[in-house]
Amino acid sequence: MATLIAPDHPSPVADAEVLRKACQGWGTDEKAIISIMGHRNAVQRKLIREAYEELYQEDLLKRLESELSGDFEKAVYRWILDPVDRDSVLVNVAIKQSDYLAIIEISCIRSPEELLAVKRAYQSRYKHSLEEDLAAHTTGDLRKLLVALMSIYRYNGDEINARLASSEADILHKFIEEKAFNDEEIIRIVTTRSKAQVMATLNRYKDEHGTSVTKNLMDDSASQYLAALRTAIRCINDPQKYYEKVLRNAINKPGTDEDALTRVIVTTAEKDLKEIKELYYKRNSVSLDHSVTKETSGDYKAFLLTLLGKED
Amino acid sequence: MATLIAPDHPSPVADAEVLRKACQGWGTDEKAIISIMGHRNAVQRKLIREAYEELYQEDLLKRLESELSGDFEKAVYRWILDPVDRDSVLVNVAIKQSDYLAIIEISCIRSPEELLAVKRAYQSRYKHSLEEDLAAHTTGDLRKLLVALMSIYRYNGDEINARLASSEADILHKFIEEKAFNDEEIIRIVTTRSKAQVMATLNRYKDEHGTSVTKNLMDDSASQYLAALRTAIRCINDPQKYYEKVLRNAINKPGTDEDALTRVIVTTAEKDLKEIKELYYKRNSVSLDHSVTKETSGDYKAFLLTLLGKED
Repeated sequence: MATLIAPDHPSPVADAEVLRKACQGWGTDEKAIISIMGHRNAVQRKLIREAYEELYQEDLLKRLESELSGDFEKAVYRWILDPVDRDSVLVNVAIKQSDYLAIIEISCIRSPEELLAVKRAYQSRYKHSLEEDLAAHTTGDLRKLLVALMSIYRYNGDEINARLASSEADILHKFIEEKAFNDEEIIRIVTTRSKAQVMATLNRYKDEHGTSVTKNLMDDSASQYLAALRTAIRCINDPQKYYEKVLRNAINKPGTDEDALTRVIVTTAEKDLKEIKELYYKRNSVSLDHSVTKETSGDYKAFLLTLLGKED
Repeated sequence: MATLIAPDHPSPVADAEVLRKACQGWGTDEKAIISIMGHRNAVQRKLIREAYEELYQEDLLKRLESELSGDFEKAVYRWILDPVDRDSVLVNVAIKQSDYLAIIEISCIRSPEELLAVKRAYQSRYKHSLEEDLAAHTTGDLRKLLVALMSIYRYNGDEINARLASSEADILHKFIEEKAFNDEEIIRIVTTRSKAQVMATLNRYKDEHGTSVTKNLMDDSASQYLAALRTAIRCINDPQKYYEKVLRNAINKPGTDEDALTRVIVTTAEKDLKEIKELYYKRNSVSLDHSVTKETSGDYKAFLLTLLGKED
């Protein structure tokens, strides 16, 4: 469930007027921006952008970019974007910065139709395909895996072929035993099968061999490919548990990883951040709100806490 | 341009009645079937199927399958199917028979949106993704190439990056010189770039090195991968010229390759078979109609000639 608290029918014109006022004159009224934008869902935000453009012949996003700064600006910018457009921006930034988490998340957690919409948004924004940019910026086994994850239009049905799960669990086990972690058969199974089928295969593997595939996909090489493969499997198998871990790592990192923190909160606040918060509390014995309060500050903190569902 | 000759507004109900009559009683009236189905476009055929189902609570396709036989049955069946559904059937058959021409044609000649529609049709028909079936039935370099061609959602814009074309023509040349034909960079360029960009790169290669990439992608190995790569490049670069060659090979083969003949005629009769016929005449000094008349017989011949635009 979402953590976002949004009124039922706010007036886009009234909202646009408040935002305009918050941006005018000496200084910016960040509180007003948070109180509006932190309480509007994707459709409402879109209507505000349209109303703002109509009223003031100005792009609200651009205006906010020039008024705000730092992590707060980044978070507001990402938040205001339409979800599929936001994903396309996240992937583009991730490709440029060789930060593959966002790429794996989006390719493995979004539904096939959502992923397709992200690809369309990417093409309309950058005039290239997402896949060609990703392929041109990566090499070797990592490229094979990431491009395959991003390219696939997976079958989205729930049907499971138990015999296939069993035979492909055996294939995984065979190559893992041989430490042939980059074998194309492993990549094929993880990247082309439906998520339900991949999960059935992972379960079967666990039943047969007593440990999870991800635990067995380890060596001492610190290989980027292997880390990416484990991440992909986690994202397919249990996105909420995966997101909890990303949040935990982001918060425990010396200096805090604000980009990861922003990304997870912004992309899940309208979806399942409530469940992720529960997992976080279970695993860390402190609430996510508490950790965010401790590790961030200023308008950025206030904005994240608003998205996390804090009552004003 | 199409070769199909279809009236503007035929009555689906009247057509369904004629077809019903043609299927009833002792023997089948193939001529009546050809005179209707050989002169109806995709939308009209769909309306006939719907009218037939409504009138007789029977699937027209299934009825025709049971009434007809051999190459004629196959051709009628393929023809009546909705084009994207037909492509999904062609790909499925091709995967099972390891006949990769149809796979390469469909992945490289259809537009990105058409290819996506084929994948959707495939999933709805077979309850798997096209990509997973293809990946599970192929191996090695051939798999890498075919799965990449099928998975990609290419950018469809006309914009060309001339500098990129030049640098990627150099990459192609480098690996071709080294006879590293299966290098991932070659696969990346051919499979991920927009078709306009691939063509710019091929042209640049020709300008720089005086021969086409396909001429240089040859060795003595009779490798399936290399043949598939050349086919993909031809399909991207000049689909009509490619189709002319498929027709020529199908006709000149001892015994005639009816499957290929049917496939090309059925899939292009509503699109650009006219241009393909012109190329055929130029290259072979006989008309395609003449060759088809010579190499086929019976109802199958009559049906193909009708699709080729022969006036009754």
